[in-house]
This record gives sequence, structure tokens and C-alpha cells, in this order.
Amino acid sequence: MTQNASFALSRMLQTHPQISKSPFDLDALTECIDACFECAQICTSCADACLGETEHAGHLMHCIRLNSDCADICTTTGRVLVRQTQPEMAVIRAQLQACLAACKACGDECQGHAEKMDMKHCAICAESCRRCEQACQKMLDGLST
Amino acid sequence: MTQNASFALSRMLQTHPQISKSPFDLDALTECIDACFECAQICTSCADACLGETEHAGHLMHCIRLNSDCADICTTTGRVLVRQTQPEMAVIRAQLQACLAACKACGDECQGHAEKMDMKHCAICAESCRRCEQACQKMLDGLST
Amino acid sequence: MTQNASFALSRMLQTHPQISKSPFDLDALTECIDACFECAQICTSCADACLGETEHAGHLMHCIRLNSDCADICTTTGRVLVRQTQPEMAVIRAQLQACLAACKACGDECQGHAEKMDMKHCAICAESCRRCEQACQKMLDGLST
Amino acid sequence: MTQNASFALSRMLQTHPQISKSPFDLDALTECIDACFECAQICTSCADACLGETEHAGHLMHCIRLNSDCADICTTTGRVLVRQTQPEMAVIRAQLQACLAACKACGDECQGHAEKMDMKHCAICAESCRRCEQACQKMLDGLST
Repeated sequence: MTQNASFALSRMLQTHPQISKSPFDLDALTECIDACFECAQICTSCADACLGETEHAGHLMHCIRLNSDCADICTTTGRVLVRQTQPEMAVIRAQLQACLAACKACGDECQGHAEKMDMKHCAICAESCRRCEQACQKMLDGLST
Repeated sequence: MTQNASFALSRMLQTHPQISKSPFDLDALTECIDACFECAQICTSCADACLGETEHAGHLMHCIRLNSDCADICTTTGRVLVRQTQPEMAVIRAQLQACLAACKACGDECQGHAEKMDMKHCAICAESCRRCEQACQKMLDGLST
Repeated sequence: MTQNASFALSRMLQTHPQISKSPFDLDALTECIDACFECAQICTSCADACLGETEHAGHLMHCIRLNSDCADICTTTGRVLVRQTQPEMAVIRAQLQACLAACKACGDECQGHAEKMDMKHCAICAESCRRCEQACQKMLDGLST
Repeated sequence: MTQNASFALSRMLQTHPQISKSPFDLDALTECIDACFECAQICTSCADACLGETEHAGHLMHCIRLNSDCADICTTTGRVLVRQTQPEMAVIRAQLQACLAACKACGDECQGHAEKMDMKHCAICAESCRRCEQACQKMLDGLST
């Protein structure tokens, strides 16, 4: 693959007509948006991979549910953060907190299945959830100072 | 129209195999899911209607932005609430709070345009936002008691 | 419930500044948008209800998959149709065809489970899929004449 | 950034329990999913950047509309393609065709604004649309042979 989502996103934000008014650190913002879209993608995949674990699908019910919620919440959080025209901080802060909660719950569940059941897709998904959780936390830390 | 989204949803939730374990009041839940999907639909329409107000689109920039965020956040909140298999309360609570914030911000903005610029689509959108804001508040009140 | 998604949507489309240029019959458009949002909601619920059928979840794997695709496709089709500012017919036609295919596949699968396994949520979901399939077909018929 | 969406996605698909039954070439599939998620991200950003072009927003109305449709359609197409458990070819084919149409329309419009109005975000967006259009075409070519 010759192109890279992060690189296109980075150029996109740099050429945005309102970016000079952004209340966010541009590197932290780019990382957080990228982490949200990756986590949405990987959680959608993990929900489907767990469903495809025919012998274990019953044990993975809670994982599928958390993956589905996390995929939806990360998609929406990524879209809200991408928008840099006249941001509304109360909405952004609350959505970041929801994303943090979803990534923490899903990351914990997936890490458990990775360790106890050697589910490799859950191990990869736990990494994406942790990355997104940390990126959301960093954004929230930046807003409160 | 002979069918009704709320009626289909209501029957759907009543036949859900895990509904007896739901931590939610079924009427409040049905109303909140329905309000989220309606608000997502109406906010998507209001963003587009504001964009189509060729002479006023410049003044409606903040409205379009808030409508877009609110549409995405309501869609995700509705999907998270629809899921009744093994719900994760920390995630649901945080997403309800994000939805409340989005509906409040968008409802305030739309109400202002309805009153000052006589924007009829903004008046209808403000109603949907208020309905969803109240339904989310009622759900949150039910969780904390 | 005192409000109704279809009623709010109907008023919204009537007050849209570009609606007089719409290439669509307004009643067929309103019905199709409403059917898309309902089907998205009901398919999200059916995927979750099937997941919650602990003893039968293995047999419902294909149903969960089709429900998930149909929910996503109906959400997007509904959002595309809601937008009435400068519509692009090639995109709208192709997305309506994708929605038709998704509703047909999911409706067939759900109807089978309703008949053979007496799954009540699948029976309700099959109805929503049929309603949306017919509404998409009617829109496509209207475009080609 | 140390992680990469494509790399996580690639590992995810390789560890999927049903991947050996996939009717798709794994490299073409990974590229197409990645292109869909990137295009969804970049089109959401371009719609917002166009909205923020305060002096030109009127001329960019059609672009904002096409960007919004393309973002929604690419998000859904990416999610449908990510799912590898019991895929339904008629649905996947129709959704790929809708994505191709959306990326073509949006890429053409953005390229025009990049060339005539020197809109740099539209130039970047046109690239993402072309990449996704080509990836969808390659997938469709692979299905018909």
C-alpha cells in the first residue's frame, strides 16, 4: 500500500481553512482521529471474528456486544473530532469520555480472551482499544489545562 | 403510512430473549431509542436544509456543524441502547451523557434560528432535539436511583 | 408516545428550501426514508436478539451477519435520501439498489427463522425488511420512468 | 505514530477464523477496506473544510453534499467488507457498486475545485476518492471472473 490514512489526514487538517482557530494540539488531534477510525475498523472485525468462532461464540457474546458498541462509538467520535469548523467543546468532551469508556470496557474484555483463550484477534483488538483509550485521555487532559 | 417505527420497536424489544434481565424501564427505553433515531433523521435533514438556504448558509455554519454531530451521536446512542444482550452500564451512561450534550447544544442553536430567522426546519429540529434530550435525561435519572 | 418520526420527517421535508427541485415524489420519498430508518433500528435489534438466543446462536450466525449489514446499509441509504440539496442520481440509484439487495437477503433469512424456528423477533424484522425493500423498489421504479 | 491502521487490519484478517473460506483475494480485500475507511475519514474532513471556506461555501454546496454521501457510503462499505463470516455476495457486490459511484462523483467534483479554485483539501480528497474507486473496481473485477 502506497498511501497511508494518517498521512492523508495530516495533510487534510493542515489545509483546513479554520485549523488556526482549533483549540486542540494538532499532533494529538491527528493521532486521536486516526486511533478512533482504526479502533472502529478493528472492533467491527473482532465482533465478526468472534461470531465466526463457532465453538466458542457462546463465551464471546459479551465481547461481540462490547465490540459492536465500541465500533459505533469510535466511528462517531472520529467524525466529531474531524470537524474543525466551529467546534462545541461540551459535546466534544462528553463524546471523548464515552469513547474512553467504550475503549476501556472493550479493551479489558478482549485482553481477557487473548490471555485465557489465546484469541489472537482479541489480542490485536485490545491493542487498538488501548491506543484509542490513551489518545482520548490525552485529548481530555489537553482540554482541562 | 400503515406501519410505525415505535410500534415495530416496541414489539421487537418485548420478544428479545434477554429483555427480562434489562436494567431499564421498558417504556422509557423504547421512548429513548425512538427519540434517538428520530433525532438522527431530523438533524441529518436540518443540516442539509440549512446548506440549501443559499442566502443564509453562512449564518447557519454553526448549525450545520451541530446538526452533523448530533445526527452521528444520536445514531450511535440509539444503536447502543437497542442492544439488550449483556449491556455495559459505564459505556451506556457515558454515551447517554454525550447524547444529552449534543441534543442540548443543537436544540439551543436551532431554537435561536427558528425565533430570529423564522427557519421552520430549525423549529422542527429543535423539537426533536428537546424530545431526545428529555428522553436521555429520564434514562440517566432511572440509572442513578 | 405523542410524537411520530414520520410526522416530523414529513414536516421537515415540506419546509426544506430545495424541495421544489426534488426529482422524487414526496410521499414515496418520505415513506422510503422512514422505512430505511425503521429497518436500520429493527435489524440492529434483531442482530442483538439473535446473539442473545444462547441455545440457538450458532444457527443464527448468518442471520446476525445479514442483520448487521442491513442495519448499516439502511442507515446510510436513509441519510443519503434525506439530503435534498443537489442530489446526484447515479449515487442515489446505486445506493437504493444496494439497500434493496440487503433488505431482500435479510428478509428472506429472517422469514426462514420465523417459520422454521418460531423466532418472533425474526418475524418482526422480516416485516421491516419487506417494507423497506418495497419502498426502495418503488423509488427505483419512479426514477426509471 | 507507531501504529498503522493497515497493519492492524492485515493482522486482524489473517487471524480471522473464517478467512480460509473468503471468496476474496486477501491483499485486494485489505486494500479495499483500508481505502474505504480512509475515504470516509477524508470526505468527512473535506465536507467540513468546504463548510469552513466562508467566502466560497456557496460554490461548494454540491461538494459538501457529495462528500457527506461518500463518507456515509464508504463507512458502510468498509464495515460490510470487514465482515468475513458467511458473506452474502449479492449484497457485497451491490454495495461495492454504490461505493464506486459515490467515489467517482465525489472525486470528479473535488478534482474540479482543486483545479479551478486551488482548493488544497479538495485535491487531497480527490486522491482518496480515486484510490477507493480503484480498489472497489478491483474487487468487482475479482468477483466477476
